[in-house]
Amino acid sequence: MEYLRVSEAQRIVLESVALLNAELAGLEQSLGRVLAEDIRANRDLPPYDVSAMDGYAVRSADLVQVPVTLEVIEDIKAGDMPGKIVQPGQCARIMTGAPVPQGADAVMRVEDTQEISANLIQVITTIKDGHDVRPQGENMRNGDVVLSTGTEITPGVIGILATVKITQMQVYRRPRVAILSTGNELEAINAPVDMNKIPDSNTYALMAQVQALGITPALLGIARDDPLELEHYLKLGLEYDVLLVSGGTSVGVHDYVRPTVEKLGVAMKFWRVAMKPGHPLAFGVLHAAGEEARQSDAFVFGLPGNPVSSMVCFEEFVAPALRRMMGHPRLFRRTVSARLAHPLKMRPGRTEFVRVQLTQDDTGYVASSTGTQSSGVLLSMARADGLLVMSADSTGLAAGAQVTVQLMDGTAYQHEMNIRE
Amino acid sequence: MEYLRVSEAQRIVLESVALLNAELAGLEQSLGRVLAEDIRANRDLPPYDVSAMDGYAVRSADLVQVPVTLEVIEDIKAGDMPGKIVQPGQCARIMTGAPVPQGADAVMRVEDTQEISANLIQVITTIKDGHDVRPQGENMRNGDVVLSTGTEITPGVIGILATVKITQMQVYRRPRVAILSTGNELEAINAPVDMNKIPDSNTYALMAQVQALGITPALLGIARDDPLELEHYLKLGLEYDVLLVSGGTSVGVHDYVRPTVEKLGVAMKFWRVAMKPGHPLAFGVLHAAGEEARQSDAFVFGLPGNPVSSMVCFEEFVAPALRRMMGHPRLFRRTVSARLAHPLKMRPGRTEFVRVQLTQDDTGYVASSTGTQSSGVLLSMARADGLLVMSADSTGLAAGAQVTVQLMDGTAYQHEMNIRE
Repeated sequence: MEYLRVSEAQRIVLESVALLNAELAGLEQSLGRVLAEDIRANRDLPPYDVSAMDGYAVRSADLVQVPVTLEVIEDIKAGDMPGKIVQPGQCARIMTGAPVPQGADAVMRVEDTQEISANLIQVITTIKDGHDVRPQGENMRNGDVVLSTGTEITPGVIGILATVKITQMQVYRRPRVAILSTGNELEAINAPVDMNKIPDSNTYALMAQVQALGITPALLGIARDDPLELEHYLKLGLEYDVLLVSGGTSVGVHDYVRPTVEKLGVAMKFWRVAMKPGHPLAFGVLHAAGEEARQSDAFVFGLPGNPVSSMVCFEEFVAPALRRMMGHPRLFRRTVSARLAHPLKMRPGRTEFVRVQLTQDDTGYVASSTGTQSSGVLLSMARADGLLVMSADSTGLAAGAQVTVQLMDGTAYQHEMNIRE
Repeated sequence: MEYLRVSEAQRIVLESVALLNAELAGLEQSLGRVLAEDIRANRDLPPYDVSAMDGYAVRSADLVQVPVTLEVIEDIKAGDMPGKIVQPGQCARIMTGAPVPQGADAVMRVEDTQEISANLIQVITTIKDGHDVRPQGENMRNGDVVLSTGTEITPGVIGILATVKITQMQVYRRPRVAILSTGNELEAINAPVDMNKIPDSNTYALMAQVQALGITPALLGIARDDPLELEHYLKLGLEYDVLLVSGGTSVGVHDYVRPTVEKLGVAMKFWRVAMKPGHPLAFGVLHAAGEEARQSDAFVFGLPGNPVSSMVCFEEFVAPALRRMMGHPRLFRRTVSARLAHPLKMRPGRTEFVRVQLTQDDTGYVASSTGTQSSGVLLSMARADGLLVMSADSTGLAAGAQVTVQLMDGTAYQHEMNIRE
């Protein structure tokens, strides 16, 4: 089998996975989930014309000639209903959100008026009909769909759900994910230090990548390079929706993962992708019997044992798959354009993902390599703000080249506010 | 008091709040927290020179003239120690991560070799000393600080913590946050629909904004516009590190929040900021007595009752304050540069935050307004990818203008992968 291009491998993964079933979620536990039902408005909002300001409800026709003195006939708080009709030469004191009384058609904000006495004000400026009035139904009209299936639940969406008084709603369920590390060389986190072993970091880095998507994974631990032990663990892992196995999927003679998952019924879709870091990367599907087939399929990702490679493969293949299963409309890491701070060499043939830090100057983002790009150096991953993508046909990039960088976890905020007030 | 500029108000807030105390967190619960201690390596990694590939450990001097046939003297798996010394004309089969045997100085990957018999291979290409060998200590050296105080715990950082076998560590604690809505016009989420009332969405939108920072807030509910009831709730809220009060901080005659918090000992730092949406916005500090003073101070944000204004003020002032208290080095929303799709009018005098959607074309990001910018329309906030910032001295922007957009929650991923492979 030849090496697949990144996009081709991604297409296979994304066509294989299916949207999961829906389940109920409470409003307070729904942030980051995806709606599996349409949400409709349960009334007009505002229910009537309301004031957008603290001020005075006036008749705009009274203000054609200013200054003018108006009689204050009433005091309307938010939550009150007006008791009087505003006649020519009159106004009503009104709070933000309170109903505009009959007769009035605009609101003059309190800062633009002068109190002459307890029930007389002077107005100096002219305003138009509708000024600082929020019309009935401006926010939403009773019965209209205000949020549709497939909407990701952000804080703004939660505000709307609360507005239509939804305390629980259908959302796509999260995939159950299991994580397994393999290899005799691995040392469990609670085992005593053995200089001849390598601490198992993949279990935890992958755990955190899964957690960052809002999923709590099951940690299966470490399977030794033994066919029976591996079969036991892989069988266990295939009971989950998604099994992540790191290590053991290479072409080396001691790799038992591929033959074992195939023995367990997994159809391998690919096991070689032309990317760096990222070798070897395998993907397979265990088809479930029966009608509900696709939603009960199990998916196996065979990730590289190397910690950096494993994390990069997760970003490029596993995260989009998990997000698709949860119904997210956006599957791929946010990209920004940046200027490269220094030249980058490259051997063509594989798409390269270079760990970079981002800074900002007057021209925009500047990307610099986090140092050695040896796939073993997890520190370079921890320090990275993003992955700079070098196309497979590139032979290198010059300093100053315009590049595309995928933003990683921890980059939703930046050091400087960087706006012009 | 005059209107403060956004940056001036932000400076006051950020100078007032202090870094909170540290507490222990378990590795599996630490994602997104900030380290409050330095973390040191507990050994050299790799502990010796190891193979970066599945292949053959060779003597590079043997490969000056190729093709050459080498005798395979041993089979070294990851986790094994080599038993033999590689002599001229010999090599050892080696797995990724396994120790490079004495005598060998490079690794030839299996794909670049040809198996002639069970213990003979042919090598066609030349490699240099050190090729595909990861030297001892390349990842980390015993005793070195690998992660320092103030590091945000991302998946890559969790990988490193696992590598040095840290299962719990000191992190800055999260502020305890209380949320209170005020106003007679508000209807609680579980109350029956009353056409004369406005559903309380602020409690939940703010809850979600706080949750997005990794904090579970306490929801105090709705206080009516009554001085005694308000005092009761505000007193309760001031027992938290941070109290968010929405509604009731305007200059209108029915606003009791400011006099009540002042009566309770809060020193108001400002109550007017030149931004839109965002009026009124107030900030105050309740200084704690005693030595631990700053860490026990309580902070009150008086946010606008308007849902969109409340959310925007949270983004610009509350989120940076909460992040600083938790030790995050990055306080401000990630910005991207975008091209404006259409003209935008503006009345100068206040910094304006315009809700926009972002798309991408060949030139980069394109920003379009999400529709009406009336501060009442929460849907425009739910649809927004970001806030376009218009400076206070602007009188408007032409279509095609280069603008700065702050990315909002839900934008860590995008629709298209948008890389050149």
